[in-house]
Amino acid sequence: MQEVEILAFDVFGTVVDWHGSIAREVEALNLGVDGGEFALAWRAGYRPAMQRVMSGELGWTLIDDLHRGILDDVLAQFGITSLTESQKRNLNRVWHRLEPWPDAVEGLSRLKQRFMICTLSNGNLGLLANMAKRVGLAWDCLLSAEVFRQYKPHPDTYLGVAQVFDVPAEAVMMVAAHQDDLDSARSYGLKTAYIERPNEFGAANPKDIAGSPANDRHAGSIIALAEQLGC
Amino acid sequence: MQEVEILAFDVFGTVVDWHGSIAREVEALNLGVDGGEFALAWRAGYRPAMQRVMSGELGWTLIDDLHRGILDDVLAQFGITSLTESQKRNLNRVWHRLEPWPDAVEGLSRLKQRFMICTLSNGNLGLLANMAKRVGLAWDCLLSAEVFRQYKPHPDTYLGVAQVFDVPAEAVMMVAAHQDDLDSARSYGLKTAYIERPNEFGAANPKDIAGSPANDRHAGSIIALAEQLGC
Repeated sequence: MQEVEILAFDVFGTVVDWHGSIAREVEALNLGVDGGEFALAWRAGYRPAMQRVMSGELGWTLIDDLHRGILDDVLAQFGITSLTESQKRNLNRVWHRLEPWPDAVEGLSRLKQRFMICTLSNGNLGLLANMAKRVGLAWDCLLSAEVFRQYKPHPDTYLGVAQVFDVPAEAVMMVAAHQDDLDSARSYGLKTAYIERPNEFGAANPKDIAGSPANDRHAGSIIALAEQLGC
Repeated sequence: MQEVEILAFDVFGTVVDWHGSIAREVEALNLGVDGGEFALAWRAGYRPAMQRVMSGELGWTLIDDLHRGILDDVLAQFGITSLTESQKRNLNRVWHRLEPWPDAVEGLSRLKQRFMICTLSNGNLGLLANMAKRVGLAWDCLLSAEVFRQYKPHPDTYLGVAQVFDVPAEAVMMVAAHQDDLDSARSYGLKTAYIERPNEFGAANPKDIAGSPANDRHAGSIIALAEQLGC
């Protein structure tokens, strides 16, 4: 039986708290809008924007640029006209400054002792590097849609991790708080670990954290996953 | 004046000692050949092999696979027929196990406090990740020809670093023990730092370490570079 050697992590929502981080930054700008609602609206634009890239309607576009396009729409939607171009650029970079969930830094450092730990995120490399450096996420390697020129759930992303490390697909475990990401990973032969993030969309919008029984692991946090894996 | 934010390191010869590492592994195999000569022959095949990729004669090929093709030639050249396929595969992976120069781990850790530190290597991502993890090279991000689908000195590699981090070219400093690499980097607007590695080809074959006066920095080691840059 093939042992797992590589842990590939989804990042937004699984390792970092996009909702809380964005809500706090938006609240601090005193724009007279609800930060949590703003965060939800911004994130809601993410899949449609990526879909436009995946369908070929948009050429290859980094998440930073997709986020900026959505931000402009969301600002209009919320009737915010007071931000300068420089303030908008800075706000768009909030995705580089997302705060980790409280267990993430320690959990990753423990898992790193025994496994190769990498990202497998639709976030671009610069975003992932800035995020990791700011708070100390100890990745061994950043892998991104940017490397494979395809967004998850394209098979080139999941299978790309195995190819980069020259291992069979089943030597890679995808770790995510999103069952659809794990279902895709499993369909290409990867192992899967579900992480519970009930407050991914804010405490006011608790998320179903049942996960699928098909997952190889199910853990309440990255530290709990480390414990399950003997780290 | 643009400050340097990103340090992009050449790896083979600059951060790790390919000659000494390969010579030692080959000597340990007791093949009756001089390990240092074997290392030189293996490395000598590197540029011609890459040239075949860059000219389009060969399709895109990872360094791991180029190294294996050259290894087969070098084994024949040295009249070595005793290795099994598994032994050859393992020997080819010596490039994942190259030892750092004595100053590299500490020097990088110091530079990391103040700069984004990344590789810019023709080595593939899996190779760079395995190498870094084994000895503790504290990269913030691995960038490789594999990310840009071009080998150095193609401009997409040097300029790709600036694009990944969304900074002007002059915010990136290329760090290398090879003047030709630095000359290319500078021609595309990057800053340059030369690191002296007089024994890159073995103590018996001392290398010219004068460097060009056009470099922004010239240092005897990565620790010395850290000191020059106030780290």
